[in-house]
Amino acid sequence: MRDVAAAAGVSRGTVSRVINGGHWVSPPAREAVEQAIATTGYRANQHARSLVTGRSNSLAFLITEPQSRLFADPVFSMLLRGAAEAVSARSMALVVLVAGTPSERENAAQYIGAGHVDGVLLISSHESDPMVQLLLEQDIPTVACGMPLGFAGRVPSVSVEEAGSARTVVAHLRERGRRRIAMITGPMDTPGGRYRLEGYRDELGDDFDDSLVVHGDWSQDSGTAGMEELLARHPDLDAVFAGSDLMAAGAIIALGRAGRSIPDDVAVVGFDDSGLAQALDPPLTTMRQPFDAISVEMVNTLVGLVEGGGTRSVTLPATLVVREST
Amino acid sequence: MRDVAAAAGVSRGTVSRVINGGHWVSPPAREAVEQAIATTGYRANQHARSLVTGRSNSLAFLITEPQSRLFADPVFSMLLRGAAEAVSARSMALVVLVAGTPSERENAAQYIGAGHVDGVLLISSHESDPMVQLLLEQDIPTVACGMPLGFAGRVPSVSVEEAGSARTVVAHLRERGRRRIAMITGPMDTPGGRYRLEGYRDELGDDFDDSLVVHGDWSQDSGTAGMEELLARHPDLDAVFAGSDLMAAGAIIALGRAGRSIPDDVAVVGFDDSGLAQALDPPLTTMRQPFDAISVEMVNTLVGLVEGGGTRSVTLPATLVVREST
Repeated sequence: MRDVAAAAGVSRGTVSRVINGGHWVSPPAREAVEQAIATTGYRANQHARSLVTGRSNSLAFLITEPQSRLFADPVFSMLLRGAAEAVSARSMALVVLVAGTPSERENAAQYIGAGHVDGVLLISSHESDPMVQLLLEQDIPTVACGMPLGFAGRVPSVSVEEAGSARTVVAHLRERGRRRIAMITGPMDTPGGRYRLEGYRDELGDDFDDSLVVHGDWSQDSGTAGMEELLARHPDLDAVFAGSDLMAAGAIIALGRAGRSIPDDVAVVGFDDSGLAQALDPPLTTMRQPFDAISVEMVNTLVGLVEGGGTRSVTLPATLVVREST
Repeated sequence: MRDVAAAAGVSRGTVSRVINGGHWVSPPAREAVEQAIATTGYRANQHARSLVTGRSNSLAFLITEPQSRLFADPVFSMLLRGAAEAVSARSMALVVLVAGTPSERENAAQYIGAGHVDGVLLISSHESDPMVQLLLEQDIPTVACGMPLGFAGRVPSVSVEEAGSARTVVAHLRERGRRRIAMITGPMDTPGGRYRLEGYRDELGDDFDDSLVVHGDWSQDSGTAGMEELLARHPDLDAVFAGSDLMAAGAIIALGRAGRSIPDDVAVVGFDDSGLAQALDPPLTTMRQPFDAISVEMVNTLVGLVEGGGTRSVTLPATLVVREST
């Protein structure tokens, strides 16, 4: 910085003011400093700068799931695409951290705690996730996708209308004349798992039958296994609501093996409309999550938090998309 | 640090020596300092520490491709899994950066240049990639997967035997009695695209026919389009070597549409054995890349570079896996 000041014929304070935003600097002085920076090849010491601003100009996209799920479930690529665009539009870097194992979680927490990212987009979390606890303890600005169970009111979130969407699905199946509507839920320690089941139960009211519900883990295999279990328990079921498109894809495999036609014998509805739904055979009726809006809201909320703004949680509506499976 | 020194009854210099490795500290003093750190809740200022060590204890997994390719091609998930394990075993964080657009590249380069990662695993690169140029200019320790074209000798790499593997494929197809062997290459500005074609050409020798070669972009769609083009040019072809399993999957679709049976009418060979090969119908003969070994070698080489060791490039053999498609 001393070299830059000498080359520009100004004080070091002037150089510093130019580098840090250019306030209180005359236009000729700024021009001289910028010229001198170019000729001396000066580059700010970013570690030192971070000491002052405390910013890394980046956000983390944090997944606390095994890496295999990142690639298996198209939901993640939809969210990542939206987040990458929103972050890039702010000239920030998006840093993807996959922390599926305890040691990966520890290393990621160290990295985040050391200030290498300004905030965290928490993409998936399970109830009482130790990672969320670590982020809270370290005062890391964090926004969750879906309400993180066990941290009510402590972590702002961007969610879809979970229970209301599930009610819409059940109402649609009833309109189609279905009377034995089963459900394959997501994990009960995730908001999508728990609240979609709540909506299904509320809408069914007195018709709710606990034995028509099985729990999956969001994976396709768990959809297949869940459907097999449901068919064994209730050979007369005439509809199934899967908590995700990927689990619906698994259910479709099981129904095919059992010789049931879709939708004539069994109507199938998924959740997400992640791109997979349209490609299935038959194309899947599903609730469309507004992934782009979710990503943008998450990034906006997080940047607000990083800049010292208040917290807010956002709930967005999902839309029923009717295709050939119902 | 002052509080820690007071609580431990030692000088601040002693506290500093304990924190930075414990040299020249008596065991009782170290114990007192560690005790005091625990009771005072002291946490090192990582920005300040980075000023001293210059390390972030993390490596970047950098993909300079559109994000859609990350999810479409199983090769990336194989490499990511191996890298995540190798990095985690060293208690470092693995930071995934997807820099597919010019603005993403700029933001990623800023982030890397600011010292938020200690080195870069360059997963895919195209000839004269501006990202590689940026990394070289900033003296960022970098190891490439495959020899980065246009940077010979300047970036250490971990590669499979590209040309030799292609020769093995051609020899296998000839052993199967095939005489009109076509090729769908990867992009000519990537090492896998260029050198696999070289091996194919060398092995065919006088039988090489330029019109039996089409160029894909690694995507499945490009495999389908390439196969259609080859069938139009040479309805008599009896074998095709695709430069990746994903392009082979696309070629299989085109062959099915054209009513050709595999392998009776046309034998098909891929490259990678990324998990997809086994799932195809028919299961695909392919060259197996040793992804785990590639990831581990890349991480080891990069950590060596970060720690000031010398550069080395590694070439690993691929293995022919014969399945029903030949």
